[in-house]
Amino acid sequence: MRNIYILGAAGSIGLQTLTVLKENREHYHLVGLSLGSNHKTNFEILENFSVEIVCLRDETMILSYQKDYPDTSFVYGEQGLIEVATYHKPGILVNALSGSSGLKPTIAAIKTNKDIALANKETLVMAGDIVKKLVKEYHVNLYPIDSEHSALWQAMNGEDKSFIKKLVITASGGSFRDLNRKQLENVTVKDALKHPNWAMGDKITIDSATMMNKGLEVIEAHHLFDLEYDQIETILHQESIVHGLVYFIDGLVKASLSVSDMKIPITYALFHPNRRAYEHNLELTNLSFKPMDFNRFPLLQVAYDVGKQGGIMPTVMNAANEAAVKLFLIGKISFLDIESIVIETVKSYVQIEHPSLEEIIKTDQEVQEMIRITYGKR
Amino acid sequence: MRNIYILGAAGSIGLQTLTVLKENREHYHLVGLSLGSNHKTNFEILENFSVEIVCLRDETMILSYQKDYPDTSFVYGEQGLIEVATYHKPGILVNALSGSSGLKPTIAAIKTNKDIALANKETLVMAGDIVKKLVKEYHVNLYPIDSEHSALWQAMNGEDKSFIKKLVITASGGSFRDLNRKQLENVTVKDALKHPNWAMGDKITIDSATMMNKGLEVIEAHHLFDLEYDQIETILHQESIVHGLVYFIDGLVKASLSVSDMKIPITYALFHPNRRAYEHNLELTNLSFKPMDFNRFPLLQVAYDVGKQGGIMPTVMNAANEAAVKLFLIGKISFLDIESIVIETVKSYVQIEHPSLEEIIKTDQEVQEMIRITYGKR
Repeated sequence: MRNIYILGAAGSIGLQTLTVLKENREHYHLVGLSLGSNHKTNFEILENFSVEIVCLRDETMILSYQKDYPDTSFVYGEQGLIEVATYHKPGILVNALSGSSGLKPTIAAIKTNKDIALANKETLVMAGDIVKKLVKEYHVNLYPIDSEHSALWQAMNGEDKSFIKKLVITASGGSFRDLNRKQLENVTVKDALKHPNWAMGDKITIDSATMMNKGLEVIEAHHLFDLEYDQIETILHQESIVHGLVYFIDGLVKASLSVSDMKIPITYALFHPNRRAYEHNLELTNLSFKPMDFNRFPLLQVAYDVGKQGGIMPTVMNAANEAAVKLFLIGKISFLDIESIVIETVKSYVQIEHPSLEEIIKTDQEVQEMIRITYGKR
Repeated sequence: MRNIYILGAAGSIGLQTLTVLKENREHYHLVGLSLGSNHKTNFEILENFSVEIVCLRDETMILSYQKDYPDTSFVYGEQGLIEVATYHKPGILVNALSGSSGLKPTIAAIKTNKDIALANKETLVMAGDIVKKLVKEYHVNLYPIDSEHSALWQAMNGEDKSFIKKLVITASGGSFRDLNRKQLENVTVKDALKHPNWAMGDKITIDSATMMNKGLEVIEAHHLFDLEYDQIETILHQESIVHGLVYFIDGLVKASLSVSDMKIPITYALFHPNRRAYEHNLELTNLSFKPMDFNRFPLLQVAYDVGKQGGIMPTVMNAANEAAVKLFLIGKISFLDIESIVIETVKSYVQIEHPSLEEIIKTDQEVQEMIRITYGKR
């Protein structure tokens, strides 16, 4: 029986992690989690799992929750996430938070010697070098939950890293994959949120449509697998069956395939190297692949560029994108504005070569606030 | 520097193995080999490699070869293959012989503690249980060279066998894949030898067209990977890019892909778990998969049936097929006669549950002779 914590338990990945835990109650004891603003979802979770510490979104929620669950400690906000992450019982932390708010809790959890199952891309995008150093220093494990990274990780099982030639990450193309750039001018938020292959959170669905999500994944893969950017490629693959491919130096290529079901990578992260039986039904049909189109998806090129530059630049890109996506979702800017805001912001920023964690967090906040102020007033 | 022997050095797999050795002279010392009936090919091989023992096809060839290569021991025929296989220097034996003649040399080599890199399917089809027992007894290794089995073997790297749900072996469909059974009635030997995806020896090209080859591979996979027949499936895959897929119990599927180049699995068998750099260029394009059609390819069903029956039956099927293919190649029977001869022969034979090696070899000869006599006179 191992302790487990989930940040972002009420989100898409969080809820699927809870389903996995429900089916494996004999293996994991859920100690702490963070919830969102949907009370119905929150109460359903608390009814199903008796946990010791819960982080709520804001202070005002605490009183009513505390009344219903008198034996649970309730905390809130950014500081509350840290309190869950640093809770005194050892275990594994599933970080399924969306956005840059995921960074600090990851680091806090590592410093209390917790293993990390990571769905929060921003942790590695913003502070990959720092996080990896801490992972070594505190002898903890860092497991990917993203389907692409889980696919690549599994394809590398039993293989010596020195024999890897390159990785290929597949991309569905997102909700606008059949539109050209001209047609993107007038797309709506509602259109953007219709992902062709699956339902996810809003932020990642928009990031899929701009291909920013794939850019974040490329940077994440660079850190997770210690490979150079020219060893990490992307390819368009509409069916989303093949999630990642590892090319070896001898010409052999290993691909990881599965139906689009996040429970598969989540379960693997929690039980690997063991596998838990799970009924699925991958029927092999035709699989199509098309070269990535960097002109159609300019943000992916930006991600490669800032990835290679390193330092503070991935944080700048990520913050600009995060703020721009928020503005798009509330109707303040157009879909194509997301791209231009990210591109302009990255261009205008001065590099910091080896930023401290404080500089990273400060820059993230600065960039997001600057964009909120500049573009949010329209 | 390791010693290596090649049986069937002048055949398709043998020649490609020699190319691999040429590029890796610092790793392997070729000690012995067997040649075929093409003198030009034979002499080219002997010019390139200075070997200690050579098996020629028949005694009449020895004198002229001995004159040109006075320092080499020349042996011949079936007994000669055994002499190469049991040569006193330790090492690895690549068995690239075609047909049932490959069985005895494999066993002889194992008994002199040589590792086996196996391209000869018949070794395991006829005597899988016996061979595997000997492999354990003599503490030798048995590595597959077949592209499908190499693909599956590699996809299993680093994975616990108990987590494997099933294997899927891909089939190109062979030279007549676009013909229906009616259209098969009048096909010629020349048509049959035109494999759509690559050039191979005559026997295996015909076996690909009848799907017998895939049947032999299923039986081989059963022995190599210790899996039940209902855990081994086949699928039609025209492009021959994906060579094998391993389905795990948690829904993850690993596929091994490569261009159709036997040097890749040969090199892996000789150097694994290391990989040798090799320039290839797998461009991912569309991959198509279709369910196997057992009505179109009845011999595949026969292979599953005799595989499940075990005992002497796989030997009977293999011998009937080997003899029938020979008759087809010299124009004595039609393409569809291969199927009916194999099916009738298998039906008419009485099972031997746990045949000895002697019974297996005797049955193989009996069946082949019976078919040669019965159908060869036409």
